[in-house]
Amino acid sequence: MPLSPEQQAEIDAQRSETQPTLRAVSAGMEAHLYTAKPVLDHGFVRVIDYMGDDAAICQAARVSYGRGTKSVSNDEGLIRYLMRHWHSTPFEMCEIKLHVKLPIFVARQWIRHRTANVNEYSARYSILDREFYIPAPEHLAAQSVTNNQGRGEALEGAEADRVLRYLRDDAMRAFDHYEEMISTEDQQGLARELARMNLPANTYTQWYWKVDLHNLLHFLRLRADSHAQYEIRVYADAICEMVADWVPFAYKAFEDYRMGGAQLSSTALDCVRRMLKGEEVSQETSGMSKGEWREFKAVLDGEG
Amino acid sequence: MPLSPEQQAEIDAQRSETQPTLRAVSAGMEAHLYTAKPVLDHGFVRVIDYMGDDAAICQAARVSYGRGTKSVSNDEGLIRYLMRHWHSTPFEMCEIKLHVKLPIFVARQWIRHRTANVNEYSARYSILDREFYIPAPEHLAAQSVTNNQGRGEALEGAEADRVLRYLRDDAMRAFDHYEEMISTEDQQGLARELARMNLPANTYTQWYWKVDLHNLLHFLRLRADSHAQYEIRVYADAICEMVADWVPFAYKAFEDYRMGGAQLSSTALDCVRRMLKGEEVSQETSGMSKGEWREFKAVLDGEG
Amino acid sequence: MPLSPEQQAEIDAQRSETQPTLRAVSAGMEAHLYTAKPVLDHGFVRVIDYMGDDAAICQAARVSYGRGTKSVSNDEGLIRYLMRHWHSTPFEMCEIKLHVKLPIFVARQWIRHRTANVNEYSARYSILDREFYIPAPEHLAAQSVTNNQGRGEALEGAEADRVLRYLRDDAMRAFDHYEEMISTEDQQGLARELARMNLPANTYTQWYWKVDLHNLLHFLRLRADSHAQYEIRVYADAICEMVADWVPFAYKAFEDYRMGGAQLSSTALDCVRRMLKGEEVSQETSGMSKGEWREFKAVLDGEG
Amino acid sequence: MPLSPEQQAEIDAQRSETQPTLRAVSAGMEAHLYTAKPVLDHGFVRVIDYMGDDAAICQAARVSYGRGTKSVSNDEGLIRYLMRHWHSTPFEMCEIKLHVKLPIFVARQWIRHRTANVNEYSARYSILDREFYIPAPEHLAAQSVTNNQGRGEALEGAEADRVLRYLRDDAMRAFDHYEEMISTEDQQGLARELARMNLPANTYTQWYWKVDLHNLLHFLRLRADSHAQYEIRVYADAICEMVADWVPFAYKAFEDYRMGGAQLSSTALDCVRRMLKGEEVSQETSGMSKGEWREFKAVLDGEG
Repeated sequence: MPLSPEQQAEIDAQRSETQPTLRAVSAGMEAHLYTAKPVLDHGFVRVIDYMGDDAAICQAARVSYGRGTKSVSNDEGLIRYLMRHWHSTPFEMCEIKLHVKLPIFVARQWIRHRTANVNEYSARYSILDREFYIPAPEHLAAQSVTNNQGRGEALEGAEADRVLRYLRDDAMRAFDHYEEMISTEDQQGLARELARMNLPANTYTQWYWKVDLHNLLHFLRLRADSHAQYEIRVYADAICEMVADWVPFAYKAFEDYRMGGAQLSSTALDCVRRMLKGEEVSQETSGMSKGEWREFKAVLDGEG
Repeated sequence: MPLSPEQQAEIDAQRSETQPTLRAVSAGMEAHLYTAKPVLDHGFVRVIDYMGDDAAICQAARVSYGRGTKSVSNDEGLIRYLMRHWHSTPFEMCEIKLHVKLPIFVARQWIRHRTANVNEYSARYSILDREFYIPAPEHLAAQSVTNNQGRGEALEGAEADRVLRYLRDDAMRAFDHYEEMISTEDQQGLARELARMNLPANTYTQWYWKVDLHNLLHFLRLRADSHAQYEIRVYADAICEMVADWVPFAYKAFEDYRMGGAQLSSTALDCVRRMLKGEEVSQETSGMSKGEWREFKAVLDGEG
Repeated sequence: MPLSPEQQAEIDAQRSETQPTLRAVSAGMEAHLYTAKPVLDHGFVRVIDYMGDDAAICQAARVSYGRGTKSVSNDEGLIRYLMRHWHSTPFEMCEIKLHVKLPIFVARQWIRHRTANVNEYSARYSILDREFYIPAPEHLAAQSVTNNQGRGEALEGAEADRVLRYLRDDAMRAFDHYEEMISTEDQQGLARELARMNLPANTYTQWYWKVDLHNLLHFLRLRADSHAQYEIRVYADAICEMVADWVPFAYKAFEDYRMGGAQLSSTALDCVRRMLKGEEVSQETSGMSKGEWREFKAVLDGEG
Repeated sequence: MPLSPEQQAEIDAQRSETQPTLRAVSAGMEAHLYTAKPVLDHGFVRVIDYMGDDAAICQAARVSYGRGTKSVSNDEGLIRYLMRHWHSTPFEMCEIKLHVKLPIFVARQWIRHRTANVNEYSARYSILDREFYIPAPEHLAAQSVTNNQGRGEALEGAEADRVLRYLRDDAMRAFDHYEEMISTEDQQGLARELARMNLPANTYTQWYWKVDLHNLLHFLRLRADSHAQYEIRVYADAICEMVADWVPFAYKAFEDYRMGGAQLSSTALDCVRRMLKGEEVSQETSGMSKGEWREFKAVLDGEG
């Protein structure tokens, strides 16, 4: 269970009292506030704060596009128009602040998205907890043989058992030694900033992460994607559920134009045009490489 | 008067109803919300939204610095510690969204601060208003003769009159021609995106500007400074008043460590040490250039 | 002619001597270095410096994707793969520094791209030149009646004459008054930082603009697009020619996947699939709004 | 030894041939190009590319400040002026690209500086090497008892031996298991993206890191500082040596105004003024907290 009784008590306290505000309020998001949504075996995501809602996106767009936006009859239509035409600045007018607990190797992928503000728990000043991510057996995937990026089938039997044993035992031993090294009982005690180097990449860390909606959607497009590593995708999926309740119009447009859409190249568009005219197009006549053609066919078959 | 009756009615409506929220609320900032603070002859600044308060800065710092921050007895002490040691990420956890109306030449200086989100009124799609900044007579400064950046005394008499007449007449004529060019009465009408090029840099524009507290304080340090151009400084001053009410501890620390403080070079520190030992130090013996020495003396004399 | 004899002499001097370097050199780009490419009536773009080439993109990709990238047979194939899968970081490993002279209203659009470094000529400290953009008659477009953004046909006859006269006369008069106001002959002289507010938005300014290749391509996608305003598009077009010579593989991939490609929504992809199965799809049965359908048809017809 | 024979051969090849260029060339930096400067037990830093030199900083400043900069007699004086007055944009006109090999826990600190471009070796696609950072005995510091951040004395005797044994043995065992888990001999083999989670934070990784000079100097100010963790400080120190040869004027100004300088608060400046007038100021009469006073005294005593 990811939350300690103290953490749960803190959340209950935070959720028990409201205050009046003149700011834009998203009822859907208020329902999520502070509540930790469990992810993986010990992780979570919870919303600490947010700014703006669907109406705030439109309000900013109307300042900047003026009359142009008045011809669009309503907020949903305007938001779809903005998303379709890559007008990103109105989406930047919303902001979210999340508290995330996650394994270090996931944090290392996540932080590559630079346009966000981060305050991470510091193992230089503080002592880490004895918590490690150990995959559930069904997520113990083999290396894919057809694809450099993906995963193959789940491991089974003795191989799976051995992997789980290694992950658990190595983490536990590393943590035992971490504690021994920093202990000040009958010894000086190694500096925390050094001792932490003994801990493996499945150790949990946590941070506050604040980002605007435009950059969040970009993150979600890459990380809620089927090609993303499972362990970060589950965080992205959890955040998607929050965003859907926070800014429902923006999220729906995002699903249609980004998540479910596809970028077709000039060559691919040309092939579509030829096919619609009845021509039989093959990889050889397409002008695409084998890899491109395979991806193109997957899009046409709805497997992209 | 900067606000039209419609705008004032809109503000009154926005301020008339509160909603409950579970988020952090800054009472000092709620009092500012939506209200347009007049700046220059037709400009204003108003807060549209904000995220976080002094406690939110501390909350983020405590996540990241852990035990280290617990030794600091209270929020104000912690915030002073963070400011003093240039720990910027906790301040990034607060965000503000402003609606600003400002002359174009001020907007051009302002936009050089890139770490912010902006939605500006578009003269490509919309028609600008007939509003220009005309300096008050006491701000009609002469070019400084001793300083490339600064202003000298205010112009007087016939010279001042002529400047004001030029500024007013040229702006009015340019706007008359702007309207004539885009008019579609008995003619095609020039595209707005072209006609706008006739308007001078004192034409008012407006935008939504969203920025985190760390970057806002950096902006204020540069623009509320006595060396900043008067026409942008008055906007910075207006924002300072809001920030002082929004995050009082952070603002006080900012005043002490940034606005009222000074960066001394290695050479300057060395001079201070020599002077404290009783040595008489002059520019010649200081190791500083004349410009540096003048600035150093100004700091020591409290004129920095 | 945009270049003064002094500027041309400076360019000739810069181009006359080479020095040896161990860095990556792009022969195609060396041919452009320092040479001012004229744009509009008084503007130009010239390359001051660059970092990296096609090979540098691949080198960075091979560090980060390791074995995965070795299966791609050659640099061009790898670059196409990176572009297709939105792997942006290898493209960030190239950098370019441009010197651009451009009208202020173009500069104001340009600066909205924030992920770049800029040093602009300061009218606070320096005196501007008497140079204004006056559109050629064929670019004196009417406001489009069907489209909020676009331009219609070129104005003709007396209407065109009057527009050109207004633009020229107002600019000249504003500049005369600018010079009179800052003059220190027999008067104090208005501060430059104030006098500049009298100048119109077609006044030329100049800046150094430095940006990485990924962000440059994003800029070019938006600004070399047929929907961009003509006056910024000509700058983007000029830069495209340089990029094509600098990183030919990357530029070709950009043309295929970005400039000539299109993002299709989930709904649009579904329509394509239905059409390929022989179904007759209309706007009514498409699930798209009228605007979306019109844009979708333009893509299928190759007019996107 | 950090470099393999293959890597050394690659460097030798890269350094053996120069090409002519029209760009700005820094002779001091050419001498560093490609050569790996060893850091820690298996790490290194090497320059892959650079853009600009001291003259390029001045060139950009002269575009933007115009006449103002002409009154400064020479490049060094201008650069000192820019540094002193926090004019950061001219320094952004230089860029550097480094190849760095470093332990993961150092990489995690480093990446917090977001204004840079990064391509990191991917343990998702590639197999990591069996290389770990093991501190030299003299850097095996105890946790400081007086300071949350710092380190105390080096551990000695049996305690030091045990720490080194733990670090070595745990890393080796973890790597043995990593290799076993991904092995495809007689088993499926765990996905690399999962197996990596077993490796400790002292495992070496590598990346290409590209940053402009302004942001690099900011990084160096924080990381070459005596309060920075030793393991990142040695990288910062190595980079400082390169920068000193690349842009000697800028580096000297940086040393004087940033590294060797200090920011004094309003309260601290007031104390200096009182002390210069002969007043005896103590912590009690200073208006500072104990921590501030201790830091202030350290600055005055030249221990800051």
